[in-house]
Amino acid sequence: MQQLYPHTGKAHVIGITGPPGAGKSTLTDKLAKNYRQQGKTVGIVAVDPTSPFSGGAILGDRIRMNELTLDPGVFIRSMGTRGSLGGLSRKTADTVKILDASGKDVIFIETVGVGQSEVDIVKAADTTVVVLVPGLGDDIQAIKAGILEIGDIFAINKADREGVERLNTEIEMMLDLNQSSVDWRPRVFRTVASRSTGVDELIAGIDEHIDYLNRSEELSKRRIQRTKNELLALLEEQIGRHVLSKITSTGKLDAMVLSIEQREKDPYTLVSELLASFLR
Amino acid sequence: MQQLYPHTGKAHVIGITGPPGAGKSTLTDKLAKNYRQQGKTVGIVAVDPTSPFSGGAILGDRIRMNELTLDPGVFIRSMGTRGSLGGLSRKTADTVKILDASGKDVIFIETVGVGQSEVDIVKAADTTVVVLVPGLGDDIQAIKAGILEIGDIFAINKADREGVERLNTEIEMMLDLNQSSVDWRPRVFRTVASRSTGVDELIAGIDEHIDYLNRSEELSKRRIQRTKNELLALLEEQIGRHVLSKITSTGKLDAMVLSIEQREKDPYTLVSELLASFLR
Repeated sequence: MQQLYPHTGKAHVIGITGPPGAGKSTLTDKLAKNYRQQGKTVGIVAVDPTSPFSGGAILGDRIRMNELTLDPGVFIRSMGTRGSLGGLSRKTADTVKILDASGKDVIFIETVGVGQSEVDIVKAADTTVVVLVPGLGDDIQAIKAGILEIGDIFAINKADREGVERLNTEIEMMLDLNQSSVDWRPRVFRTVASRSTGVDELIAGIDEHIDYLNRSEELSKRRIQRTKNELLALLEEQIGRHVLSKITSTGKLDAMVLSIEQREKDPYTLVSELLASFLR
Repeated sequence: MQQLYPHTGKAHVIGITGPPGAGKSTLTDKLAKNYRQQGKTVGIVAVDPTSPFSGGAILGDRIRMNELTLDPGVFIRSMGTRGSLGGLSRKTADTVKILDASGKDVIFIETVGVGQSEVDIVKAADTTVVVLVPGLGDDIQAIKAGILEIGDIFAINKADREGVERLNTEIEMMLDLNQSSVDWRPRVFRTVASRSTGVDELIAGIDEHIDYLNRSEELSKRRIQRTKNELLALLEEQIGRHVLSKITSTGKLDAMVLSIEQREKDPYTLVSELLASFLR
């Protein structure tokens, strides 16, 4: 990663996020094909936050994208969280950097966007497309509220379904209420990814956002903020690893845990004591 | 928390997790009412991983549970991730401890279970109920695979919908393939929470799991593992906070970020240098 780093920063990174069942994989597939037809090379990082346990879903994604996998101009990497202990957003960012350094023009990060870790993952993107779908019930309200502020572009997929007008109105209303960026008003598109409907228009919307990022100071601002977050996360992870190996190597961890479990000590006091012994 | 800690460890903690739209809040509501009728006091920690941005969903949960909020034997705490920087699972665990120390007999942790952070949250529970629902489309496969191993009990909610038999068979098949615990075979229940159908049976299943936990060494094993994880997470968080405050107080952070962004330095080398300066 040290050697790759100087070669990064050239690709445009597009985040694709949304609730389960929104058709993110299919839409990413169609967007990737469209960019390929424009002669651009494409990387796809498909993050599956549920695979820590089984790994089963990864195969599904690979199968779904099999047309693309035959194209040497496309590189697809599926990632799960197995053993990552919360470091998934950093690993995703590293994978994006590798694809970036390898010369991919456009890189997609695709993830189910309903939890904090998924939101963190998408923060590695320059442009974030939030994919929603009509008629997902009550919790969709919560999801919409949660990912509203990370969406640069909204795609209402499966737009041939009932409820598309209502969802469109709701999103527009929320965008009106929630103007975090003065310069960019997120746009809402309708797609039916399975039939490639609306994909050209969505690509035009993404291009428009890229133009905006380049024209304004926004791209540089976003990338500096991202670098800052990545630096701090990396630092925290490395320190955590160091301390963990120290504690476990002394063999004292089990005794500590037992004394806490038996309520002889409390974890808060114990951590204060440990901190003093590790830090300058 | 130091003073509360000796008074914890008495409540039974029940995790309720599942995909958006599964009806977790309604089911938690009905379960809580049932325990209240048995004379038990109830705590509910409703974790909303999407509220870091808007906070909007929290109100929805409160309104949904308004019957319960009038009952002095019930305490409900809604939590978002605002400003928590990944520490949500610890904050949830702390909230559970406070309710535990306050004397609540049963404590529910309710969260949308599709991401790693949500899975971490539910690890604070003694018994985890995974709520699924028929007909949520393709991604449900991924979700099922992901939460299969954390479920002690499965509830198929909205079981009056089409597809309930197929989902039931799928879950049973996966449970057959995936016998992580030799002693406890997760049971599958069907509920229609909105009409209180199947809630008594689900409670009986939870009681059966509590009996199993108490009979076997499993409860003690789980709690020791949990204490270990909590200790390490707390340590990591405290160290991270300490280091962050040191770096930002020196005022060097912005200069570092800029040199990385301009590819003069890479973050990996920089972190190695910083580590050496902080740790004994």
